[in-house]
Amino acid sequence: MNTQPKTLSILGSTGSIGTQTLDIVRKFPEQFKIVALSCNQNIELLKKQIEEFKPKIATVFNEEKADELKADIPVYKGMDGLLKVATLGEAHTVINSLVGSIGVLPTVKAIENLKNVALANKETLVTAGEIVMKKLSFHKTILLPIDSEHSAILQCLQGEKTEDINKITITCSGGAFKNKTKEELQTVKASDALQHPTWNMGAKITIDCATLMNKGFEVIEAHWLYNLDYSKIDVIIHPQSIIHSLVEFKDKSIIAQLGMPDMRIPIQYALTYPKRLENNNLPKLNLIDKKELTFKEPDLEKFPCLAMAYDCGIKGGSLPAVMNAANEIAVKYFLQDKINFLEIPRLIMKMMDSHKIIKNPSLDEILDIDKKVKEETIKIIENK
Amino acid sequence: MNTQPKTLSILGSTGSIGTQTLDIVRKFPEQFKIVALSCNQNIELLKKQIEEFKPKIATVFNEEKADELKADIPVYKGMDGLLKVATLGEAHTVINSLVGSIGVLPTVKAIENLKNVALANKETLVTAGEIVMKKLSFHKTILLPIDSEHSAILQCLQGEKTEDINKITITCSGGAFKNKTKEELQTVKASDALQHPTWNMGAKITIDCATLMNKGFEVIEAHWLYNLDYSKIDVIIHPQSIIHSLVEFKDKSIIAQLGMPDMRIPIQYALTYPKRLENNNLPKLNLIDKKELTFKEPDLEKFPCLAMAYDCGIKGGSLPAVMNAANEIAVKYFLQDKINFLEIPRLIMKMMDSHKIIKNPSLDEILDIDKKVKEETIKIIENK
Repeated sequence: MNTQPKTLSILGSTGSIGTQTLDIVRKFPEQFKIVALSCNQNIELLKKQIEEFKPKIATVFNEEKADELKADIPVYKGMDGLLKVATLGEAHTVINSLVGSIGVLPTVKAIENLKNVALANKETLVTAGEIVMKKLSFHKTILLPIDSEHSAILQCLQGEKTEDINKITITCSGGAFKNKTKEELQTVKASDALQHPTWNMGAKITIDCATLMNKGFEVIEAHWLYNLDYSKIDVIIHPQSIIHSLVEFKDKSIIAQLGMPDMRIPIQYALTYPKRLENNNLPKLNLIDKKELTFKEPDLEKFPCLAMAYDCGIKGGSLPAVMNAANEIAVKYFLQDKINFLEIPRLIMKMMDSHKIIKNPSLDEILDIDKKVKEETIKIIENK
Repeated sequence: MNTQPKTLSILGSTGSIGTQTLDIVRKFPEQFKIVALSCNQNIELLKKQIEEFKPKIATVFNEEKADELKADIPVYKGMDGLLKVATLGEAHTVINSLVGSIGVLPTVKAIENLKNVALANKETLVTAGEIVMKKLSFHKTILLPIDSEHSAILQCLQGEKTEDINKITITCSGGAFKNKTKEELQTVKASDALQHPTWNMGAKITIDCATLMNKGFEVIEAHWLYNLDYSKIDVIIHPQSIIHSLVEFKDKSIIAQLGMPDMRIPIQYALTYPKRLENNNLPKLNLIDKKELTFKEPDLEKFPCLAMAYDCGIKGGSLPAVMNAANEIAVKYFLQDKINFLEIPRLIMKMMDSHKIIKNPSLDEILDIDKKVKEETIKIIENK
């Protein structure tokens, strides 16, 4: 085909999603062209990526590290740098794989600059779902989920009408601690979680998976992405991570998407949507090898974050931003072995309980709440 | 809505698919109107159906029984009667749930009369797939599968391109004798099979499920329905019958359709396609109740009919008509306890081996082969 390659900017190109995105780009040099890359601080890898993919600009969020990077292209830093990557004129699609609420503003600015967004940053829709969905509608751009679960739902909905949905069921591996007792959960360490059984992921999301907060985020994301009431969104534990999500229609027929747990499959779908491209680098699922697929209900007593996220999503307004901010700090401290696992939900609950919900928060209000709740959560941890 | 109801003729209204189709029609009186019904010989039930659904005509295939039926509408008999039902001017869609090769001609005539066909009769595509697909294309009518497996594939393909298919996987409950040893298969009786574990079906198809010939038929049907090479059609044993079939695309993503094993779900989809209608009479699938879904390869040594069907489909021409005719007779005699289970594949193989394949048989040739092979198979059984 003689079509122009799709131009891509990647926010977070040295992380797990970023490197896997580049793996897809590498496979299809005629389909995709990288125009901008960014990292937090891994400048060694970024330098290699710049040499290989020859973007027009790059950003290093960490300002000191940015000054260290030698490159033949303009190198930007900080949030301004991320926004440069998110809004670069040449970019057709922005892949947002930033971790944390830092990803919210780049998504919004990308949409305002008429970019399509392939979204791995969960905090965008969790904290600012309403604002983002309105902006997408206003600017007539597209947001494509990179999450395997939301990619699954998107695929299940091809050729279907959202008004025909009875409910969606988001599957959940159960996380690294799914077989621990409540007593054992008091003493688990971050290092125990960091070999997640099925998916290859970053550290923060691995802990979010272990608490089920990640699944709670996905419930809120699904609410916004598919305009569904929370009563129509279920979560089911499926330890094999083969069925990535299911959609039940009003005639009781269910469509599901399955595949090997390899993030490159949903990443590629987000980049090629609504087309599919042949890629024999991607692993084939053989159900016979899998022998069995099992399902059970999530244990909300052992893992209260999921129930908290539903509650938070239903109450809405500024509350999800509070939940997310408190979670970000709690997970950060858990990763440093400074708090124990069961303190994560307790801290989040504490912050949510003391928050007075703002009904239709502006983006500035959301970012302000994010900042303040983080400071407050740090204070509570440090002073305990 | 103020749209006219869709007018339906049912071939085989007193059988399993027929009565379940009427169950759907009963649920949606504003969507569907029955204009013709037919049965083989169950005139008591047909009479009740005529009173309830008030068709314009009815047919009783069995001529003596036809003469017994008292009704206020014209009653036809024999193959002529079936063709009246299949071609009635008022009918928009013909549901063909006849059992056996007797269903082939009514499908063809319905298509020639520009009807859409909702097809449960497997023999139509198995014996005359090429002719039927050409006629559909020429007359620009639609054939919608009622089989749960092909309905699943159709649903998985909504919004997708058939050229993106890597392969399809048809699931198979394994049949009533899936756990029997080869020795045990020598002495199993039809009555052992007739409580099929998962689906509510007629006697002939229950035996076809037990031999895996039914799955072989479905492979051949899928070949024609979705224009797929046999190398792209897999069969997998899935005893729970929850995943009804799967489609793997070239990006290694798999879409599957799931649901409770209730034929009314695919029947309703065939009637409402491409729409879905809310129906709370249909059962919801709860994966947690199911606990586990398992998969294994079919045992082609114990159940050779499946391998024979692949071979037969690949060789093509008139051979599938031979396989089907021999199978029909063998199953009939097995149902009467006159031959044993393992003789079914042996008889079919014998008839296939002695057949000289006609490459592009006409419909007349197919129907002629059907008749002759049946006579010959009977002769072999009776004279053994």
